[in-house]
This record gives sequence, C-alpha cells and structure tokens, in this order.
Amino acid sequence: MSITLEQAEKLSEAAKAKAKAINVPMNIAIVDEGANLVSFHRMDNAWLGSVDISIKKAKTARFFDMNTGEIGKLSQPGGPLYNIEHSNGGLITFPGGVVLKDGSGKIIGAIGVSGGSVEQDHEVASAGAEVL
Amino acid sequence: MSITLEQAEKLSEAAKAKAKAINVPMNIAIVDEGANLVSFHRMDNAWLGSVDISIKKAKTARFFDMNTGEIGKLSQPGGPLYNIEHSNGGLITFPGGVVLKDGSGKIIGAIGVSGGSVEQDHEVASAGAEVL
Amino acid sequence: MSITLEQAEKLSEAAKAKAKAINVPMNIAIVDEGANLVSFHRMDNAWLGSVDISIKKAKTARFFDMNTGEIGKLSQPGGPLYNIEHSNGGLITFPGGVVLKDGSGKIIGAIGVSGGSVEQDHEVASAGAEVL
Amino acid sequence: MSITLEQAEKLSEAAKAKAKAINVPMNIAIVDEGANLVSFHRMDNAWLGSVDISIKKAKTARFFDMNTGEIGKLSQPGGPLYNIEHSNGGLITFPGGVVLKDGSGKIIGAIGVSGGSVEQDHEVASAGAEVL
Repeated sequence: MSITLEQAEKLSEAAKAKAKAINVPMNIAIVDEGANLVSFHRMDNAWLGSVDISIKKAKTARFFDMNTGEIGKLSQPGGPLYNIEHSNGGLITFPGGVVLKDGSGKIIGAIGVSGGSVEQDHEVASAGAEVL
Repeated sequence: MSITLEQAEKLSEAAKAKAKAINVPMNIAIVDEGANLVSFHRMDNAWLGSVDISIKKAKTARFFDMNTGEIGKLSQPGGPLYNIEHSNGGLITFPGGVVLKDGSGKIIGAIGVSGGSVEQDHEVASAGAEVL
Repeated sequence: MSITLEQAEKLSEAAKAKAKAINVPMNIAIVDEGANLVSFHRMDNAWLGSVDISIKKAKTARFFDMNTGEIGKLSQPGGPLYNIEHSNGGLITFPGGVVLKDGSGKIIGAIGVSGGSVEQDHEVASAGAEVL
Repeated sequence: MSITLEQAEKLSEAAKAKAKAINVPMNIAIVDEGANLVSFHRMDNAWLGSVDISIKKAKTARFFDMNTGEIGKLSQPGGPLYNIEHSNGGLITFPGGVVLKDGSGKIIGAIGVSGGSVEQDHEVASAGAEVL
C-alpha cells in the first residue's frame, strides 16, 4: 500500500499547523511509494527556492529509505557517498526529508519540508510524519 | 496580488469534486503570478506521467496568459508558433491549463489539470478556475 | 568585431520604441558574434514565457546566420531540418530572431524578440536591427 | 509591487558606473518578485561564463530572500545546507547576489553581478541595490 491523497492531506495539515506554531512559512511535499509526487503546498510568503528543495527532499528520503540528514552525513568530502547529490537530477541531503511508515513499519512514501532552518524543516516534516 | 494557498486549496477542492463527478482521477497543479508552484494534488490512481504535465500546463498558461489549448492551435506544423514547446524547459500546449483571474480581471496565476482526455482535463481545470 | 553593449542598448531602445508604438510589451534579447547574451530587457507586463523564447530566438539566428523564420520553414514535418529544435538545448524557429550586420555586411550578433504575434515580434526585432 | 524595467535600468546604470570606477567589466542581471529575469547587461570584455552566473546569483538571492554569500556560508562541507546548489537547476551561493527592497522593506526582486572577485561582484551589486 502506498500513501493516499487523503492521508497526504492530513499529514500536510499537521505540518502546516506546526509551521504556523513556530511562525515559519514552509513548502511541504509528499511522495508515494514510487517516489512520485502526491501533494505539495507552499504557504504564503514561503521561500520560492524551497519549492524544488522540499520536493527533492521527499524524493531523496524515499530513494534511499532514510531521512535526508542521514544521507548528508555520508555525502561529505571524504565520506563514502561523496557528492551523491549529482544523481537523480539532483538530491538534497540535509535534514527536512522524512520517510513515511504505516503501522506495520512498511515505508509508504516520504515528506519533504523546506522554508526555515534545517532543524525547523525537520521538526515540521516530523510533525507530518507522526500523523501516520 | 498573487493567489494565496487558501484560495488555491479552494480551487483544488472544486476541481477534485468535478473530477470525482466525471469519475476520472486527476493531477491538479496551481501556480502563482510568478509561475511558481503553489499547490499540487494527485488523486489516487491518477496517471504518474501527469504530475509533470499538470505542472507544465499551469506554468504554460501563466507564461503566455492564455489557456494552453489556445497555444496548441498555434504550435502545429505550419502554424506560427510551431515547436514553441521546446522553450522554458518544456511546455504543454494542449487543453487543461487555464489562467486564473481575480474579480477585476487581473491574472493572479494558473491551474493545470492532467489525467483524462484533454476535454476532461479542461473541464476540471475550468471547474477550479470558476471558484475565483 | 562583435556588437558592443553600447550598440546593443541603442538597438534595444529602438526595439522598445517600436513595441510601444504598436502597444505590445516585449522581451528583447541581443547576443554577440559568439551567440552569448549581451543584453536583455523585459518590458512591464510582457509575457514571462517569452524571456526564454526571446533569448532562444537571438541564439538561433546567430547559430545559423539566418532569421529564425527561415529556419522554421525548413524544420517542418517532411522538411530537410525536421525537428532541428531539439538541438542546442532548444531552438525557437518561428519569426522574431534577426541577424545583426555591420556596415560591411559582416554578422556581429543577433536580436530576438518575443511578446506578441510572430509578425509583431519580427517587426520589433527588425526595428532594432535597422539601427546598425 | 515588483520591480519595473525602468527601475531595473536605473539600478543597472549605477552598477555599471561602479564597475567602471573599479575598472572591472561585469555581467549584471536583475530578476523580479517572481524570480523571473527583467534585465541583463554584459559589459564589453566581461567573462562569458558570468552570463549564467550573474543570472543564477540574482535568482538565488530571491529564491531565499537573502544575499548569496549568506547562503554560501551555510552550504560548505559540514554546514547545514551542504550542496544546496544542486536544487533549482543550479544555484550560485558565493557573493554577488543581493536582494532588492522597496522603501517599506518589501522584497521586490534581486540583482546578481559576476565578472570580478566576489568582493568586487558584491560591491557592484550593492551599488545597484542602493539606488532603490
């Protein structure tokens, strides 16, 4: 089973609520099991450059079934995945992309958030992911 | 003024309602005055290839301030805009992209729909656009 | 000798004056002998999608040392240059790109205009080219 | 309100004057509120590779509403935004891109300059931005 649009909308609502609570307008993207876009929302006045980044974070998390920040630790100079960002039309490997799991632990998609600091992005993405 | 996320959500709801009424799952994208993505929704089981097409339709409509089908009439072999689709990283010029105007007639964005026949795509996009 | 920025500004002024005279806001791009961008102007309210088209028209004209409309006659289905638009990161082969020649007939660059009908685009580009 | 072409021309003139004063030919690009190109000027003998860089600097500054050098501090190896440059079709994150604000502090676009050292690029971009 992949994430449905109805589920994605609930996650996005939770992420938006968290973004409002911390007062940072965010871009919120959700992809399904196949890493294909399911939903996207840009809150008013959120960074324009974060449209692409939030989508790339969601895809990157699902591409490798781990949160984006984990990949970023491995892609540094001298690291085992140095410059992996050049693949797949461009990856984003800093925090803000979080894998989405159903009740049984199966990965059914990913959420990517961009618009604030990477800590804020991760916090808002996690608030969405926790709905599942 | 550009379209807000709240407005985009209302338009998307109306488009989804029309898509359900005609029983065709659709991809629905909305861009703002600057042709930047504001929202995207892929209904369950909608074509994966239509993610990109719906976004390109919305952008194309705003790029030239006319519905995509109008451009397609001009871009045929022998037509004045033959192969205009090679510009801007790829345009989609068949119906399904509709400009969004506020009450005063000012263009504030565009909606792009893909997932059915071009007639159905245009019908669903128009159902969204009429909310404004 | 290649076109200078000072010359390009004079051509752009002439093109803008013609665009105002026919009341169509235009995008105006000028490239040099090496097909590299020298100047670009988007008049207020000109089509956003014509930024890229005007630049591609100028490059296309200099790439083949002929006005873009001439190439478009050859790139039609069944024609000798069918779908040449796929080369060079995307060509635009309908009218609006005009080669720029110095007094001795040597090509020193090209001007590309987009924002109206192809006839209007060509008229405005020609008004710029005639300054030389 | 977004920046007008008339405003962009005044900013470009100021930037060119500064470039001449420090004797470095520059590429000068200005984008509007939607990160779409408004104007571009390449001074005679300015680097060809800086055409794209100046445009990317202007877009990058508007994409994240901060000067490009600020982003570059964060995108270094080990930094929170490492390799953000892979997004949005390529960002430039060293100095030379400066946000443009109107009298009320609202961001209405950005200017990008490339052709000299990054210090010179930033100096020339700032000379343009100060006109507003």
